[in-house]
Amino acid sequence: MVSTTLSNVQQVSWEIIAEEKRLQCYQQIPPEWRLPSHYTDRVTDTSVWDVRDVPRTCGILSTREVEITENFDAVALVAAIRECKFTSEEVAIAFCKRAAVAGQLTRCLTETFFDDAIARAKDLDKYLETTKKVKGPLHGLPISLKDSFNVTGVQTTVGYVSFVGNPPKTTNSPLVDLLLDLGAVLYVKTNLPQTQMSPESMNNVFGRVLNPHNLSWGPGGSSGGEGALVSMRGSILGVGTDVAGSIRIPSLSCGVFGFKPTSSRVPYGGQGSGGRKGNPGIQACAGPLATSFRDLRFFMETVIGGSPWNYDVTALAIPWRKINHHERPLVLGCLSEEDPAYPFHPPVIRALNSAVQTLQQAGHTVKKLQKVPSISDAVTIAFQMFNLDTENTAMQHVVAGGESPIQSLETSNMTFPGQTFTLDSLFAMNQARNKFMEDWQKVWLDNELDAIIMPGHRKTAGPHESYGHPPYTLIWNFADSPACIIPYEKADASRDINDRGLADYNAEIVHGAPCAIQVVGRRYQDEELLSAAEEIASVLKVKQ
Amino acid sequence: MVSTTLSNVQQVSWEIIAEEKRLQCYQQIPPEWRLPSHYTDRVTDTSVWDVRDVPRTCGILSTREVEITENFDAVALVAAIRECKFTSEEVAIAFCKRAAVAGQLTRCLTETFFDDAIARAKDLDKYLETTKKVKGPLHGLPISLKDSFNVTGVQTTVGYVSFVGNPPKTTNSPLVDLLLDLGAVLYVKTNLPQTQMSPESMNNVFGRVLNPHNLSWGPGGSSGGEGALVSMRGSILGVGTDVAGSIRIPSLSCGVFGFKPTSSRVPYGGQGSGGRKGNPGIQACAGPLATSFRDLRFFMETVIGGSPWNYDVTALAIPWRKINHHERPLVLGCLSEEDPAYPFHPPVIRALNSAVQTLQQAGHTVKKLQKVPSISDAVTIAFQMFNLDTENTAMQHVVAGGESPIQSLETSNMTFPGQTFTLDSLFAMNQARNKFMEDWQKVWLDNELDAIIMPGHRKTAGPHESYGHPPYTLIWNFADSPACIIPYEKADASRDINDRGLADYNAEIVHGAPCAIQVVGRRYQDEELLSAAEEIASVLKVKQ
Repeated sequence: MVSTTLSNVQQVSWEIIAEEKRLQCYQQIPPEWRLPSHYTDRVTDTSVWDVRDVPRTCGILSTREVEITENFDAVALVAAIRECKFTSEEVAIAFCKRAAVAGQLTRCLTETFFDDAIARAKDLDKYLETTKKVKGPLHGLPISLKDSFNVTGVQTTVGYVSFVGNPPKTTNSPLVDLLLDLGAVLYVKTNLPQTQMSPESMNNVFGRVLNPHNLSWGPGGSSGGEGALVSMRGSILGVGTDVAGSIRIPSLSCGVFGFKPTSSRVPYGGQGSGGRKGNPGIQACAGPLATSFRDLRFFMETVIGGSPWNYDVTALAIPWRKINHHERPLVLGCLSEEDPAYPFHPPVIRALNSAVQTLQQAGHTVKKLQKVPSISDAVTIAFQMFNLDTENTAMQHVVAGGESPIQSLETSNMTFPGQTFTLDSLFAMNQARNKFMEDWQKVWLDNELDAIIMPGHRKTAGPHESYGHPPYTLIWNFADSPACIIPYEKADASRDINDRGLADYNAEIVHGAPCAIQVVGRRYQDEELLSAAEEIASVLKVKQ
Repeated sequence: MVSTTLSNVQQVSWEIIAEEKRLQCYQQIPPEWRLPSHYTDRVTDTSVWDVRDVPRTCGILSTREVEITENFDAVALVAAIRECKFTSEEVAIAFCKRAAVAGQLTRCLTETFFDDAIARAKDLDKYLETTKKVKGPLHGLPISLKDSFNVTGVQTTVGYVSFVGNPPKTTNSPLVDLLLDLGAVLYVKTNLPQTQMSPESMNNVFGRVLNPHNLSWGPGGSSGGEGALVSMRGSILGVGTDVAGSIRIPSLSCGVFGFKPTSSRVPYGGQGSGGRKGNPGIQACAGPLATSFRDLRFFMETVIGGSPWNYDVTALAIPWRKINHHERPLVLGCLSEEDPAYPFHPPVIRALNSAVQTLQQAGHTVKKLQKVPSISDAVTIAFQMFNLDTENTAMQHVVAGGESPIQSLETSNMTFPGQTFTLDSLFAMNQARNKFMEDWQKVWLDNELDAIIMPGHRKTAGPHESYGHPPYTLIWNFADSPACIIPYEKADASRDINDRGLADYNAEIVHGAPCAIQVVGRRYQDEELLSAAEEIASVLKVKQ
């Protein structure tokens, strides 16, 4: 429901429009799920506060609800529902509550549709009781969605003031239809940055998403709401999108698992993102964020098992292949040599070295990759490809709402770059991109690699607006390679000394931030990548 | 070897350059394989002459060589070589001879490398004798290649006068490397039209390819040399390329089987076509032309079984899936309603109706498709996408040689179209293309189709320069759907009356021309398409 006062955006200041929208969203939360002010008063962008325990301790969730939301991953939870250990309804209520709490602490939510979710869960319970069958492999599983996915009856504003007056959507995105057919329960959509082209999840409608590990840290972006929500276990399986790292950046920032598949393996069509359609540049991908590694594969197997190409013509008709677990030790390429323009922070280096050592101790081969294709050059071309739209459609939506561009877009020159590209330049970009892929191909084949391990970013999570360029995730969108994030270790001020005197590293401020390993595969070999990465995750867990 | 008189193209008229190149090519044919003048004198563009019997009757091939070239398809021939029924060497010699004869009758060849082929075949024989193993699944099989594929030590001129002075290639195209690793014997490259953007296989270097069924007919294009060569059984498995029908048009014109896969399933990289690299438009595909349906699948299984993505980064890492033969009758959509701009000729309609009846009699369901997405509109956008290169690189190569554009490019306004597109227009084209795919998706799903059957063109083969626009093949490049050609029946002046008074149809002139059915599948479902089409081919053969 959009109030009539919003019907003419021009006559109302954008601040009022945004505030009214936030109030409407807040009012969707049942009063008994609202946190007392002694919690919410502490929610600020500079609050040094780890809020991950609050859902367990605030008293809003019952002990059973805490158990449901904390002790299961998606694979285990669908099994528990199938075995009638829990009803879909109680699972839905538990996650609705926990998401509501998470949203109040981290601003990770945009739209909530708790009543619909609980009603659907009841229907699923009835179906199971009557037929003794589950509706599908996701029967009863709550799944959260980035705001850019359309859900019937729910608005898609993607954080634009100018979209706040738009009516609720009348159709689902294809992936949403598919998830529902597979039995999922949808209950919330999650926050993201203005235009989605930023690793800082800030917009003028829903505000800035905060990192649950420390509210004064950025949660990453653009799927920052998902990262924060999954980190709070307000969701155990969320869907984000990624064109430069937007699934992986929140995953590594918030300490959760994330996977960016090869483009178009998971249906991305029918997004309500407001971007210009028909873009010939780098294609964004949809993919999962999760609390366990196996849930990444579960999501992929299940979604692709549902024949997404029958829902979305842009989804590739490539069935999921069962890959046998590796019988032999892995051969891993380690990208440990940083691009000089993007030096690694000490905790990032330490986590990578530790992972390498652990993997070697487990019998896997790790080859240090040297003379890899230039990352800086790839970043340059990729940013050109992000600016192919001569109409700058994304920013026009900002202008239309009377609001200002967010800080990080200004900083990264992603607002009105003043550079207009031509068809000629696109031919050149495509050639450069193909050359980059060819050069990496040679690295893969010469070294007979199963996967590449490397940092996902040069930093850990840190103060808001400090993330900077995301070269180490972006290159895999540029190369269209599948890549996942495995949380591994934490920044430790006592060990991660700033011995190279990096100006933008402060050991005290990021103490305790999640570290992570990025594992990268070859294009369209998502199956092989997840198989190798599952082994890596399993080995690294041993140490934790 | 390129003669020194060609070293400065500017100083020699293009006619002399072309004539000298043709002479060099002719001299590559051993004298004992050259046809007497009472044959070659009859080779003209207006000669009403079916030359398909000449290889058998001219005395150049022995009885055993006639048997080798006429009585086997690729599947049977590799089995015969494996079982030592024939040596690779005698197979190579037989096909070199037959190709040489075919080339003299139809101008289907560009480069020949008979000595290299026979030497390689001897090596393969030695390998088999010594190891008792075949080199690969194509051990000893002669495979012909469209001239655009690069072969080390051989020129790639693609019919441009300006390329005649270029040195022989120093590397193979990735597909060539793969075919060699699989055990194939390469022996000839085949003729094609200037720029490859024409269904008339004419260029100023090698001249016009003629249709073996009747030299006064066009062989189709752009892989017209392959169509003519396979029709002559100078090759039983050839590789062409297709961006608007260039595999399927020669197949239907010359009465052979042809398959255009989904783009990038067969490696297309490393072509020496002279087109501008980095083109964001419709991607051309490589694929087979063959004398049996099962050889199309054999080619696909074998090539994709060889992991082409390890040879060519543009080849998709999607393994070939074994599809079980259909247990139930097929559900076929029949596109029998012509686009008013492109009316079907009587033999085309009769062949389609006959196929439908035969399929229905065999128990398959055929649904007439109505209100399909506009073919004319798709053709308009597709031709825009063929002209994205503002530098008009293909035509610059024509200009550089001092030669003229060929007639069919002038006719179809494909020389210097005078229209320059922008990045903005590309966004719009991509949207229109996506809409076309979505609309077809709906047709597929609403009708629960296994495949679509339809004509491959509105006409059969006919006089040179009469082919016209290829809408019925082009739309499947636009939609990136796999599509194959099954030869079926022949034009018959006594039955194919011009009852609608079509101005460009003359029953007498095309009497005896091959007819064909095009069978179309869904994007990336090449396996499902070939499975359905194999059943169709099998049913239709029963009637023949």
